[in-house]
Amino acid sequence: MWEFTEKNFGYMGATADFAGAGVVICGVPMDFTVTFRPGARLAPRHIRRVSEGLEEYSPYLERDLRDCQYFDAGDLVLPAGDVPESLRRITCAVENLFAHRKFPLLLGGEHLVSLPAVAAAARFFPELAVIQLDAHLDLRDAYDGQKLSHATVMRRIAEIVGGANIYQLGVRSGAREEFLYAREHTHFFFNEVLAPLEQICNALQDRPVYVTLDIDVLDPAYAPGTGTPEPGGCSPQEIIQALHYLGRRRLPVVGLDLVEVSPVYDPSERTSILAAKLVREAILCFSYGFSWLK
Amino acid sequence: MWEFTEKNFGYMGATADFAGAGVVICGVPMDFTVTFRPGARLAPRHIRRVSEGLEEYSPYLERDLRDCQYFDAGDLVLPAGDVPESLRRITCAVENLFAHRKFPLLLGGEHLVSLPAVAAAARFFPELAVIQLDAHLDLRDAYDGQKLSHATVMRRIAEIVGGANIYQLGVRSGAREEFLYAREHTHFFFNEVLAPLEQICNALQDRPVYVTLDIDVLDPAYAPGTGTPEPGGCSPQEIIQALHYLGRRRLPVVGLDLVEVSPVYDPSERTSILAAKLVREAILCFSYGFSWLK
Amino acid sequence: MWEFTEKNFGYMGATADFAGAGVVICGVPMDFTVTFRPGARLAPRHIRRVSEGLEEYSPYLERDLRDCQYFDAGDLVLPAGDVPESLRRITCAVENLFAHRKFPLLLGGEHLVSLPAVAAAARFFPELAVIQLDAHLDLRDAYDGQKLSHATVMRRIAEIVGGANIYQLGVRSGAREEFLYAREHTHFFFNEVLAPLEQICNALQDRPVYVTLDIDVLDPAYAPGTGTPEPGGCSPQEIIQALHYLGRRRLPVVGLDLVEVSPVYDPSERTSILAAKLVREAILCFSYGFSWLK
Amino acid sequence: MWEFTEKNFGYMGATADFAGAGVVICGVPMDFTVTFRPGARLAPRHIRRVSEGLEEYSPYLERDLRDCQYFDAGDLVLPAGDVPESLRRITCAVENLFAHRKFPLLLGGEHLVSLPAVAAAARFFPELAVIQLDAHLDLRDAYDGQKLSHATVMRRIAEIVGGANIYQLGVRSGAREEFLYAREHTHFFFNEVLAPLEQICNALQDRPVYVTLDIDVLDPAYAPGTGTPEPGGCSPQEIIQALHYLGRRRLPVVGLDLVEVSPVYDPSERTSILAAKLVREAILCFSYGFSWLK
Amino acid sequence: MWEFTEKNFGYMGATADFAGAGVVICGVPMDFTVTFRPGARLAPRHIRRVSEGLEEYSPYLERDLRDCQYFDAGDLVLPAGDVPESLRRITCAVENLFAHRKFPLLLGGEHLVSLPAVAAAARFFPELAVIQLDAHLDLRDAYDGQKLSHATVMRRIAEIVGGANIYQLGVRSGAREEFLYAREHTHFFFNEVLAPLEQICNALQDRPVYVTLDIDVLDPAYAPGTGTPEPGGCSPQEIIQALHYLGRRRLPVVGLDLVEVSPVYDPSERTSILAAKLVREAILCFSYGFSWLK
Amino acid sequence: MWEFTEKNFGYMGATADFAGAGVVICGVPMDFTVTFRPGARLAPRHIRRVSEGLEEYSPYLERDLRDCQYFDAGDLVLPAGDVPESLRRITCAVENLFAHRKFPLLLGGEHLVSLPAVAAAARFFPELAVIQLDAHLDLRDAYDGQKLSHATVMRRIAEIVGGANIYQLGVRSGAREEFLYAREHTHFFFNEVLAPLEQICNALQDRPVYVTLDIDVLDPAYAPGTGTPEPGGCSPQEIIQALHYLGRRRLPVVGLDLVEVSPVYDPSERTSILAAKLVREAILCFSYGFSWLK
Repeated sequence: MWEFTEKNFGYMGATADFAGAGVVICGVPMDFTVTFRPGARLAPRHIRRVSEGLEEYSPYLERDLRDCQYFDAGDLVLPAGDVPESLRRITCAVENLFAHRKFPLLLGGEHLVSLPAVAAAARFFPELAVIQLDAHLDLRDAYDGQKLSHATVMRRIAEIVGGANIYQLGVRSGAREEFLYAREHTHFFFNEVLAPLEQICNALQDRPVYVTLDIDVLDPAYAPGTGTPEPGGCSPQEIIQALHYLGRRRLPVVGLDLVEVSPVYDPSERTSILAAKLVREAILCFSYGFSWLK
Repeated sequence: MWEFTEKNFGYMGATADFAGAGVVICGVPMDFTVTFRPGARLAPRHIRRVSEGLEEYSPYLERDLRDCQYFDAGDLVLPAGDVPESLRRITCAVENLFAHRKFPLLLGGEHLVSLPAVAAAARFFPELAVIQLDAHLDLRDAYDGQKLSHATVMRRIAEIVGGANIYQLGVRSGAREEFLYAREHTHFFFNEVLAPLEQICNALQDRPVYVTLDIDVLDPAYAPGTGTPEPGGCSPQEIIQALHYLGRRRLPVVGLDLVEVSPVYDPSERTSILAAKLVREAILCFSYGFSWLK
Repeated sequence: MWEFTEKNFGYMGATADFAGAGVVICGVPMDFTVTFRPGARLAPRHIRRVSEGLEEYSPYLERDLRDCQYFDAGDLVLPAGDVPESLRRITCAVENLFAHRKFPLLLGGEHLVSLPAVAAAARFFPELAVIQLDAHLDLRDAYDGQKLSHATVMRRIAEIVGGANIYQLGVRSGAREEFLYAREHTHFFFNEVLAPLEQICNALQDRPVYVTLDIDVLDPAYAPGTGTPEPGGCSPQEIIQALHYLGRRRLPVVGLDLVEVSPVYDPSERTSILAAKLVREAILCFSYGFSWLK
Repeated sequence: MWEFTEKNFGYMGATADFAGAGVVICGVPMDFTVTFRPGARLAPRHIRRVSEGLEEYSPYLERDLRDCQYFDAGDLVLPAGDVPESLRRITCAVENLFAHRKFPLLLGGEHLVSLPAVAAAARFFPELAVIQLDAHLDLRDAYDGQKLSHATVMRRIAEIVGGANIYQLGVRSGAREEFLYAREHTHFFFNEVLAPLEQICNALQDRPVYVTLDIDVLDPAYAPGTGTPEPGGCSPQEIIQALHYLGRRRLPVVGLDLVEVSPVYDPSERTSILAAKLVREAILCFSYGFSWLK
Repeated sequence: MWEFTEKNFGYMGATADFAGAGVVICGVPMDFTVTFRPGARLAPRHIRRVSEGLEEYSPYLERDLRDCQYFDAGDLVLPAGDVPESLRRITCAVENLFAHRKFPLLLGGEHLVSLPAVAAAARFFPELAVIQLDAHLDLRDAYDGQKLSHATVMRRIAEIVGGANIYQLGVRSGAREEFLYAREHTHFFFNEVLAPLEQICNALQDRPVYVTLDIDVLDPAYAPGTGTPEPGGCSPQEIIQALHYLGRRRLPVVGLDLVEVSPVYDPSERTSILAAKLVREAILCFSYGFSWLK
Repeated sequence: MWEFTEKNFGYMGATADFAGAGVVICGVPMDFTVTFRPGARLAPRHIRRVSEGLEEYSPYLERDLRDCQYFDAGDLVLPAGDVPESLRRITCAVENLFAHRKFPLLLGGEHLVSLPAVAAAARFFPELAVIQLDAHLDLRDAYDGQKLSHATVMRRIAEIVGGANIYQLGVRSGAREEFLYAREHTHFFFNEVLAPLEQICNALQDRPVYVTLDIDVLDPAYAPGTGTPEPGGCSPQEIIQALHYLGRRRLPVVGLDLVEVSPVYDPSERTSILAAKLVREAILCFSYGFSWLK
C-alpha cells in the first residue's frame, strides 16, 4: 500500500469510510519542477483548511455533500526532489483507486502530477480522452532539457493517449512551437472554455474522460495564488458552469485533478477558497454521474 | 446619549454639523460572532482612512459630496465580547438618529449589526421592507447553538419585519435548510442583483426600505478583505448601479449598512477603497431622495 | 462530554491515546474580548500546522517527544460571541482533564481563557499559585465596562486564588492603576523573567502551580503575531530557560496555557513556530515532572 | 548623453543592440509627486523581473518577440525629489530616442513622466495627438499648489498639444472642475475604452499618436498594485484588445508609456505581470507598424 | 499660519489645547528624496493609529501622559515633490512652535525633515548641539547630484551648527568618504548608543540640544518598516534607556524628531508601535525637563 | 563550459572581469528537496537586488568593495526537479572556479548545494575542513527515503571529508539520531558560534577550510525568510564577528556558501538585506586573505 499523512483531517470534515466512498480526495504535494514561483506543494492542506468556510450545500446544483459518499485519503508522502519516484508513487496510488472503483480527485501540487494520473487512467480506460482547462498549453517537448516538467506535461500525456484525444480549453499562453504542435496534434480552443464544450461532448459521446484543471485558467484576479499567473483569463462562474455542463451531459468522467494553487502567493486565501469550492462542485457533479463505473 | 471615539476625523473630511446633516455615518466596530476570519471590527477606521484617495465628485451621478450635508459621528464604543449589550447600544444609537430624522449609514463590523439597526428602523417605520445584497442567506435559526450570530442575522430580522418583507439579492451560498426557509418565507434571487430590482421596486411602491449590503456579495477578486469570501460574485459596477437604481426610483430608503469588510485580509486596501466608494455613492443617492422623511 | 473539532490531526502528529497520555493539548479558539487586533482564535490550528517543521527531539533537554505520552484533543467548540458560555465550556473541559489526572496544555485564544482554566485548577488544587509570563499586568477591574476581558483576566484570577498567589514576570505595560494594584496585592517583576524564578520557586516550595504564558512577553521582533505587541520584551532563549528552570526545580506544575498568538499578523509564521517550540519544551519539562499528580 | 543603471538585464532578456532596435524600453523610476500611495519608482525593475514568467510568443497576434528588434536601455538615473531636473532628463532621453528614430516605450514611474515624454514627442511630431487610458482625468490645474503633479499631468499636456488633441478613455474619477474642463476642452469617454476607439481612429487618420496607459484604468481586482486604485474599471482583455485595435488600424503610434504600477501594494505580483504582458503586446503591435517613422 | 490635516485625531487621543501644551506633536509626511524604499510619508498617521494599543502610563518612568500637557497639531500639508517649498513650510512651522515656547516633536517622514527643524532651532538657540541616533552617517555632500537628500542631511546640518556640535550614535553604515568626514569634523560612535552618552552629556553641560532619532538605528528585527534597513543594530531597550538618560541628566533638549518609519514594509505594525512607544517616553522625558525654556 | 542567466546585473554592481577577480559570486537557485517551506530558489536575485541599499564600504573592517576584485557570474541554470544533474552542474562550475584559482562564493538555494561545492573543494584541497554555521545538524542518513536532501547534506559531506573534519556551530535542532551521530563523528557546538572559533582555528592551523552558512543559524527575528526557522538563534553581530574572526586569523578559507534564504517568507526583505551584508563582509574578509591560493 501507500502512505498518507494527515489521515483524518479531511476536506470539509469528510467522514465517509473508504469502502463506501465514490470520490476519493488525495493530496499530491509536489512542486519540484516548477520554475517561476514555488509553493504548490502546500496547496492540499490549505484547500482543506479553508474548506470549512464553505457550505456543504450547492445552490447551483441543489445537492448536498452530506448526501455524498466521499473519502479524503490525506496527502501522498513524496520524496522531495525525486521526480521519477514521486511519479511512480502517484501512479501506484491512482491505479489502486481505480482498482477499487473509486473516482480519484487529486489536489496538486504542480501540473506534472497529471501525468501519472492519466497514465494510470489510460491503463484502466483504453479509450481515454483528456479535457484540460489551463492558461498554458504545456506542450513543450522539454524544458531546460527536462522531459518531465510542469511545462511538458501535456506533451507527455499526448504520447500516452494520443494528441487527438486531448482537448485544451481556455488556453492563452505558450511558445510558438507549442501552438504549432497543438494545431497539428491536439484540439485547442484559444481563450474559450464554455463555448466549445457542447461540441466536445458530442464528439466524445460515451468515451471515458479525465479532467485536468489548472487553476491558472482563471484570471489572476480570481486566482492570484498560482505559479505562473497569466492575465486575461476566465471567471469562477465560467469554470463552475463548465463542471456543471460536464456533469449534466453525464459524460463518463473517471477522474479529475486541480493543480497549481500556490498558497504562498495568496495572502487573501481566495485562491484556496475558490479551489475548495470547485472541489465541492466536482464531487457533487461526478459522484452522481459515474454509475457506469460499477 | 451614546459615546463615540475618533470624533472629528471623519469620512472624506466630513465637516457638516450634526444638526444640518441628512446622512449620519456611524462606525460599528464589532466582530465578536464571526467564526471564520475576524477583522471586521477594524473596518470603519480603514474605510475612513482610505477615503482620502477618492474624489468627492461622482461622475456617475454628476453630484458632489461638497453639496451634501452629511456628518460622521465616529465609532460607537462597544464592549468587546458582550453581544447583548453591544446590540442594545447600536439600537439606541440608531433610534436616536431616526428620532432626529437622520439617515443612518452604518459601517460594520460584522453582519449582526444589521439586526439592531433594523429593529430600530422597524419601530419608526412599521411597514419596513429590507433589501439585502449578500453572498449568503444568513437565515440559520442558530449557529453553534447561538441565536445571535452573523450567520443568523436575517432569520432574526425576519422575525421582526416578517420574511415576506425581506428581499435577498446576489445570494450564492447557504445551508440547504436556509434555502428551504428562503423559498418558503422570503424573496430571494440566486446570483442576481440588478435584474430583480425593477420588480422589487414595483412591488414595494412607497414603503420604507432598509438596505443592508454585505461586501461579500462582490466576488472576492474585487473584495478579498472579508470574513467569508464566496467565489463567483458580482462586480463593483453591478453594486454601484444597484444603488443608483434605488436612488433613481426614489425608493424611500431610510437607512443603510455596509458590513463584513475585514482589513486584515486586504493588503492591497482595495476592499476598503471599494467600500469607501460605495459609501460616497450611497450618500449621493440617498441624501437627495429622502425629503419624505421630514 | 465536550466536543472537539480536528480530532486526529494533532500537534506534531500526537498519536498517544487519551488514557495513556500525561499531557493533553487542547485548543481554545476564542478572541471575542480582544480590543486591539483580533486573530487569536486561529492560533491553535496554525501552531499545530507549523509544528511539523520542528524536530521531536529537544537538544536542550536531551529528551524526545517520542518517549512522551501526550494527546491532542483538538479544539474546543465555542459559541462565537458568547463569553459566559465559552468560559463555562472551558471550565468544564479542564475540570474533566484534572478529573482524569491529566496535565492540561491549553493553546489560546486570548488571555481570558486562563480564567476558567485557573478556576478549574483551583478547585482541584486549593493551594494553587499562578505564574504569569506577560508584557501586561492584565489587572484592570473592568475594561470598557466589561468585567470579563483579556485586560482584566489576572484581576479575576486574583479574586479566585488571591493576589498574593500570583507571580507576574516580564511585565512592562499597564495602566497606573494596575501597577498600584500589583504593588499592593500581587508579586510582580518589572521586565524580568529568569532572575526572579529562583526566589519564587523557593517561596512556593511544593505548592501546585499553574503557568500562563502570554506570547507578548517576548519582544515583537520574536513574536510579531500577537494582539497587543509591546516593544522591549525578552528573547526566546529566556522563555525556554524559564520553562526548563521550572522543570528542573521539579515544581509541581499542574497546567499551562500559551495565549495571544495571532496568526493574521504573522506572515512569516515565526510566532506560531516559536509557540510550537515552547509547547514541545513544556511537554518535555512537565510530562516528566508531575509524578506527584498520580 | 544620459546614464542608465541595470544596463544589460533587460525585459524578457532583451538582447538586440540599440542600433538595430525599433522599440527601446526605458525605465523611469520616479514617484516624487504621488500623494496617496508611493512605490511606482520600483515598477520598472519589478516588471522586468516578472517578465521571465511570460512567453515571448503572443497567441493573440501570432507574433513572437524573437522576431522583433527591441532594446532595453535600463532605468534613467533621476535625482530623487528634484522634479524639474528629473523632467529635464526624461525629455532629453526621449528626444534622443526620437532623434535616433526609435519608438520609446517608457515604464513609469508615476503619471507625471508622461509630460516630458509628450513634450519631446510634440517637438518631433507637431501634429501629435495623445490617447490616454486612465481611471482619472488628471486635469487639475494645480494640486496642493503644485503645477507639476501626477494629478495635473494631462492639463499640462493639454497646454502643449491642445486639449482638442487629447482622447481620454476609461475615465471614472475626477473632481467636478476636471470634468467641466474635459467637457469643454478634451475628448473624454466615461468608463469606456474599446467602444470609442474606432471613432477616434477615424478622426485621427494619419496623425501621429502618443499613447499613455495608466494601469489604474483596469479594475483594482486586476491591478491592485497602483497608487490610487479606483474600483469599477475594465478588464485585461479590454486593454489588450485596445492595443491590438490601435496596431491593426496601423495608427502611427510614435511612443507609449505604462505608468502607476506600484509593486509595494502588489504582493501577488499580478499587477507587474499584467504590465509585462501589456509591454509584450505593445512591442508586437507597434514595432510592426511604424515603418512611417523612417 | 500653516495648515494641518487630521486636526483632532491625535496621538493617543491627545486632548490638551495648544496654549497649555508643552510638547507639540507635528506630522511631516515627506519622503520625496528617499532612494531605496518609499513610504515614510505614511508614518505619522500609522503611528497615531497604533498608539491606541499602548498605555498612557510608563512603568519605566512611573509617569503618565494624563499628567502631561501635549498637543497633536496633525500633519503639515506639504506639496508632493517640491522639496524646497516643503522645507520652507517645515522651517516656518517649527519656528512658530519655538516662538510659542513649545517643544516640537516631529514625526517624519524621511530624515531630510530634520534639516529645516534644526535650522529653526539654531535660530532660536545659537549654541545648539545635535544628537543623532542613526545607523547611517548621512554625511554625503551630495547624492545623485542632490544637495538636499535624506543621505546628505547631517552634512547640511553640519554646515548650520558646525560638525563639532554633532554627536552621531549607533552608526554602522556609510561610504568611506563619510567616515573620513566624520572622523575629521563630527563626533561619531561606531555601533554604540548608550555608552557614549555620559561623556557627551558632560561635554554638553547646559547647551541646548536637538535630538534626531532615525528608526533604523534599531536592528531591522525590531524595526523592519524603514527605508534603508541596516542589520546589526541595537534593541528597543537601548533606545528607551538613551531617552531616559537624556531626561534624567536634565539636558536642555529643545526638540526631537523620529524619522524613517515606513509602514508599507511593516505588515506586523511593530515598527509603528515601537515608534509610538518612543514618542510616549520622549513626551514623558522632555515635557518634564524643559522648564528652562520659559 | 556552463551557462549563466542575468549575466551583467551583479551583486552591488560588480564590475570586475572574471580574469582579474579573486572572489566569484555564483547563484545556485535550487530548492527541490526542501520539505517545509519553499522559495530558496529565488534568493540569489533578491539578494542582488537589495544589495543596492547597502554601502560598498564596511566600517567594521575599514575596507571598501571598490578596492576588491570580485566578479558576479550570475545564476547557474539548473534543470528544475532533477537533483543529480543539478548537483553535477554545480560540481562542474565550482571545480572550474577552483581551476581558475577563484574563491567561489555561492548564493543558495537550499543547503544541499553545499554538497557538490564541498565535493569540488575536496578534490582540490585534500585536507579540507568544513565549518558549518547552522541551526540544524543536517546529519540524517536519509530523509523520506532520500539520500540527497537538505536534511542529509552534512552526512553526505561527512562521507567525503570525514566527520572529524566537520565543525558545526550554532546548532540547536536535530533528531536524536543526528545528535548521537554528531557526538561520535563530528565536532558540534550547541547554540554557540563565536566562542568555539578560537579553539577551532587553533586546531585547524593552516588547513584549507570551506565555510557553509545557513541563514537559519540566526534567530528568525533577524532572518524570518528561510525554509525551516528555528527560534532561539544568534544575532547578526555574532555572525558578522565570526566572519571577521576567520578573516583576522587568516584561516585559508577556500570557498563559502550562504544558503536557505527564502524571499517568499520575507515581506520586509530584511533576510535578503542581511544576506547581502554578510556577502559584503565575506568578500572583504576572504578576498584579502587568500594569497596562499596563488
